[in-house]
Amino acid sequence: MTPVPSNATELALQRIRLTSPFWARYQALVREVVVPYQWEALNDRLPDAEPSHAIANLRIAAGREQGAFQGMVFQDSDVYKWLEAVAYLLCREPDEALERAADEVIELIAAAQQPDGYLNTYFIAKAPAERWTNLTECHELYCAGHLFEAGVAYVQATGKRRLLEVCCRFADHIDTVFGPAPDQLHGYPGHPEVELALLRLHETTGEPRYRSLAQYFIEQRGTWPHFYDIEYERRGRTSFWDNHGRDWMVRDKAYSQAHLPIVEQTAATGHAVRFAYLLTGVAHLARLSGDEAKREACLRLWDDMAQRQMYVTGGIGAQGWGESFTSAYDLPNDSAYTESCASIGLMMFASRMLQMEGDGRYADAMERALYNTVLAGMSLDGTRFFYVNPLETVPRVMPGSHVYDHVKPVRQRWFACACCPPNIARLLASIGRYVYTQRDDALYVNLYLGSEAEFERNGAHFKLRQRGDYPWDERIELDVLADAPFATTLALRLPEWCAQPQLQVNGEAVQIDADKGYARLTRRWHPGDCIVLELPMPVRRVSAHPSLRQAAGKVALQRGPLVYCLEQVDNGPDLHQLVLPADAVFRVLPGEGVLGGKQVIQVEGVRRLPAGGDALYRYDAGTPAQQRQALAFVPYFCWANRGEGEMRVWVDTC
Amino acid sequence: MTPVPSNATELALQRIRLTSPFWARYQALVREVVVPYQWEALNDRLPDAEPSHAIANLRIAAGREQGAFQGMVFQDSDVYKWLEAVAYLLCREPDEALERAADEVIELIAAAQQPDGYLNTYFIAKAPAERWTNLTECHELYCAGHLFEAGVAYVQATGKRRLLEVCCRFADHIDTVFGPAPDQLHGYPGHPEVELALLRLHETTGEPRYRSLAQYFIEQRGTWPHFYDIEYERRGRTSFWDNHGRDWMVRDKAYSQAHLPIVEQTAATGHAVRFAYLLTGVAHLARLSGDEAKREACLRLWDDMAQRQMYVTGGIGAQGWGESFTSAYDLPNDSAYTESCASIGLMMFASRMLQMEGDGRYADAMERALYNTVLAGMSLDGTRFFYVNPLETVPRVMPGSHVYDHVKPVRQRWFACACCPPNIARLLASIGRYVYTQRDDALYVNLYLGSEAEFERNGAHFKLRQRGDYPWDERIELDVLADAPFATTLALRLPEWCAQPQLQVNGEAVQIDADKGYARLTRRWHPGDCIVLELPMPVRRVSAHPSLRQAAGKVALQRGPLVYCLEQVDNGPDLHQLVLPADAVFRVLPGEGVLGGKQVIQVEGVRRLPAGGDALYRYDAGTPAQQRQALAFVPYFCWANRGEGEMRVWVDTC
Repeated sequence: MTPVPSNATELALQRIRLTSPFWARYQALVREVVVPYQWEALNDRLPDAEPSHAIANLRIAAGREQGAFQGMVFQDSDVYKWLEAVAYLLCREPDEALERAADEVIELIAAAQQPDGYLNTYFIAKAPAERWTNLTECHELYCAGHLFEAGVAYVQATGKRRLLEVCCRFADHIDTVFGPAPDQLHGYPGHPEVELALLRLHETTGEPRYRSLAQYFIEQRGTWPHFYDIEYERRGRTSFWDNHGRDWMVRDKAYSQAHLPIVEQTAATGHAVRFAYLLTGVAHLARLSGDEAKREACLRLWDDMAQRQMYVTGGIGAQGWGESFTSAYDLPNDSAYTESCASIGLMMFASRMLQMEGDGRYADAMERALYNTVLAGMSLDGTRFFYVNPLETVPRVMPGSHVYDHVKPVRQRWFACACCPPNIARLLASIGRYVYTQRDDALYVNLYLGSEAEFERNGAHFKLRQRGDYPWDERIELDVLADAPFATTLALRLPEWCAQPQLQVNGEAVQIDADKGYARLTRRWHPGDCIVLELPMPVRRVSAHPSLRQAAGKVALQRGPLVYCLEQVDNGPDLHQLVLPADAVFRVLPGEGVLGGKQVIQVEGVRRLPAGGDALYRYDAGTPAQQRQALAFVPYFCWANRGEGEMRVWVDTC
Repeated sequence: MTPVPSNATELALQRIRLTSPFWARYQALVREVVVPYQWEALNDRLPDAEPSHAIANLRIAAGREQGAFQGMVFQDSDVYKWLEAVAYLLCREPDEALERAADEVIELIAAAQQPDGYLNTYFIAKAPAERWTNLTECHELYCAGHLFEAGVAYVQATGKRRLLEVCCRFADHIDTVFGPAPDQLHGYPGHPEVELALLRLHETTGEPRYRSLAQYFIEQRGTWPHFYDIEYERRGRTSFWDNHGRDWMVRDKAYSQAHLPIVEQTAATGHAVRFAYLLTGVAHLARLSGDEAKREACLRLWDDMAQRQMYVTGGIGAQGWGESFTSAYDLPNDSAYTESCASIGLMMFASRMLQMEGDGRYADAMERALYNTVLAGMSLDGTRFFYVNPLETVPRVMPGSHVYDHVKPVRQRWFACACCPPNIARLLASIGRYVYTQRDDALYVNLYLGSEAEFERNGAHFKLRQRGDYPWDERIELDVLADAPFATTLALRLPEWCAQPQLQVNGEAVQIDADKGYARLTRRWHPGDCIVLELPMPVRRVSAHPSLRQAAGKVALQRGPLVYCLEQVDNGPDLHQLVLPADAVFRVLPGEGVLGGKQVIQVEGVRRLPAGGDALYRYDAGTPAQQRQALAFVPYFCWANRGEGEMRVWVDTC
């Protein structure tokens, strides 16, 4: 086993240090608020939340505590995601107490692992006879995947191999259980995740079997006769879940993207998180293997997702049922699902596509998801979370309508199904991984955020220092720090939201030849070279494709990567009566209070004042009276930090 | 038992003969298409539909056939509603074959009745030990109610008492089972219907016990400790239905308007059909008893329904979940439930309110429901039916989204739960009952439709002949036919949609003093007197209350009582891009093809042409290009008679 430090195209997290105030604040929140809070949650020490029982389950599985398994079948994954977040924090700066807590959890995990390598507390403690009998509905391989991601992150952060060894033992076990041999299961998980994780494990350990196993899971998926049916019959037609008609996960194979082999699929469908996690693995494998059919599938499915089924906030998953996609050009604003985890998955998928394609469209969507849906998933103080991120809320109608059962008007502290908070934590703690992509042809700068990163390319060692106040300010400076000159191509992303980017090197304007969304600078760099990229950030009106009826006659506002919204606290109720004139002039102002340090938009708008009174309907009431009203838009990611109220992204225009 | 011919305020159906071509056509359809088709359905002789098994269930219960009960627990009610429709047809004209078929069914029903009077094929044939153990979820009293309505209608139509006797035996039995005595059940039905039916049975038979029993059911409803909980515990916490978490009907008491005593309820809530059926009974009882608290509850709940929760089409029930109301000013257009049966229930509730209050607002809503949602429930050829009547459909997005699970883009032939088709049939066959209300203070003309009706008031016998081509033409003529002069007050409804009604008597203009929505003419009438009411019908723009966000910035078109809509077949796809300018001039034209005999609206409108292409979002695209387009609106009740396509009632305006 020859360890490779990290995904070759991805910068190891130790090699980038964030200096951006915007992101440093988020990372401090994760360190000081989120991770400690989640640690208390995992240990059932929160007075105001349902017990998680996740650590207790590990103790029980390890034989250190008597008791019964409690929680979701995928409860283990919360612990693994917490560990992964901890690992990323430890890459940033040492923290003895935190590392000690993590090491103790890792020992507990190791103790819970069975002699054959198997590891899942639900099946160890509660249903040992049912191991690997219900891949469709349960989450053994999903949990395994999160374990592997944690193991990879932890060894990269600390050099400690204990958790990685647990991972490998489990992966080796899985490799004996699944495969084409007659005595193996010819199956794959209902919830993808293990595929992308096995590929990370493969890149970290160099073990080719892990890549082969990921490939097996990916290629076996959606073949017929169908594994879901086979195992359903084999286990006597029992179902784990008891809703929507019991065996619906078996029947509705598109829910988990298993209705067809992946290379034959043409549309983003089913559970949005599963889709994004699966395609992350497929794209990773396509790059490693050079398999053109898989690459084509990734391109095709990405396009369907991003060009027909993605919200302007980078959210995916238009319906609560199945937390899933609906169809092209159907993006309801108030009943959207748009799960925080799905946008995190979108970022992961995007990063793999960037690695494969070097095309800025993937970074554009990644940034859109990050600065809007993902950040909106957490309150500004790091204590509360959205699972679902709608683009319109009217709290007064929500209790009466089951269309909104999945939507909350304000963030919640913790969830029975607690996937989003730890997922947001690990994403924020590892944001540095998304900044650069190292390809043979160029070093790609995908995200602009204040940081210092070390690189080694073609024998040259150098650093890039990014400065600026992105996403608020348009000026980005990149300093080349090195001991000696070196030649390489730097590819600077030209965001799709920016109409007129301007580039200087060492004070001289450089003509930009955009190539797949990047400005490529191929030259011999000298220590002290300074690149200045100006990305003018006027407020822009976003309009939607003509077939997207939920945005017809409406616009959204965007400045830089940030989508804005109206909130009742600033603009009064009945936001649907507000109109943004086509010629309105925007003013960008500093926010106040909890919005301090943010920028808000003010604009002279109009409030329609239809006749009120008791009548529900009126005849020939004429064009409603209009009243000028100063409209205040706030960044979407900041919404619902000032109490409960209406919110709206798409605003009527005229 | 002293039979009373009918509800004293309601005109017996034999006493009105329809001459309106519009309505004669509908009644002919019911006679020639709907009732025969449903007869085949009830007898499982349709090759293209799931078997109903309803007649077979009766045979089995009567011991005339071996076999097992099949179908819904309320399958019997389909037979009863069919019989009720047949009775109304027989009031219109004799039909030996039809009456013979009905008589045979009645004999079968009588044979199925148990010695103690009990009658319900599900519990007789399938679950005899479970009689009266699950009022919350099953439909024994609901089916009883439909039986009683059929029995009342049949004796009124034919003078034959056979079915009425079956009804009375069953009602007498129910009266022994339910009541305040210690050995009686202190319960009431989860699905109201028996209350309104017992009151009809009371008015037909003169039996006061039936009224008392209805009163018991109404007053017991929603009292605590709660009957649903008591019987749930008593039967060992079993549930009949297996969805939404089993016992949800027990828990969600507001679903069946049983969360509070009716006199304490303040908002229309829960299952819309149940609400309307229940309030029909409550309003009837309030009038008979003069109970002010019940009357106030009716006024209050009516207002909440009609002024805050009713679609412009007269539909009620804004969500698929529970086929139920949501809350004030929340009326989604595409995911509406707006069941045909609920609007029929609204008409029944309205007719009782008219009888009690003599206020035109109830007739206005009744007419709105009738000419829009109820008529839309059936195809123009009488062969297909809508259960759900949305105000916007985009067929291409429906298969992908579970928000639309309950919505169909075109009418269906028959339903597993076949409540709507026979309900529409009985409503259309008995439309004459809704035309007039006979109160002490006046004879009210609620609906304008070509007809001849006989009256007896204060000893005078006379006829009113209505002529005209309503709803298409604005001129209505009423001829007074009598042998001698007589004095009475005629109250002519002044529809709320009509801004400038004009009235003449014998060629002389009469000043209209509107009183609660009626023009009252108190005079001594002479044979040959002729009243002409002109109700100008310009196309009117309807706008909605400012809090109704689903209609913000939009208008609907209405002409006379008819709401209009856009269809794709006339206007192309993406109806959401069509705009109706504020100054547009309407042309009313005769329809063609399947719309022959109808009037359509043409108007110069605008199609927004936002930039298309692959991009889902664009920046600063400017005001979309616009293209003038002649828009064609068709009556909402005619939609989806020309294949599948988009439809939209609320249209953007500017």
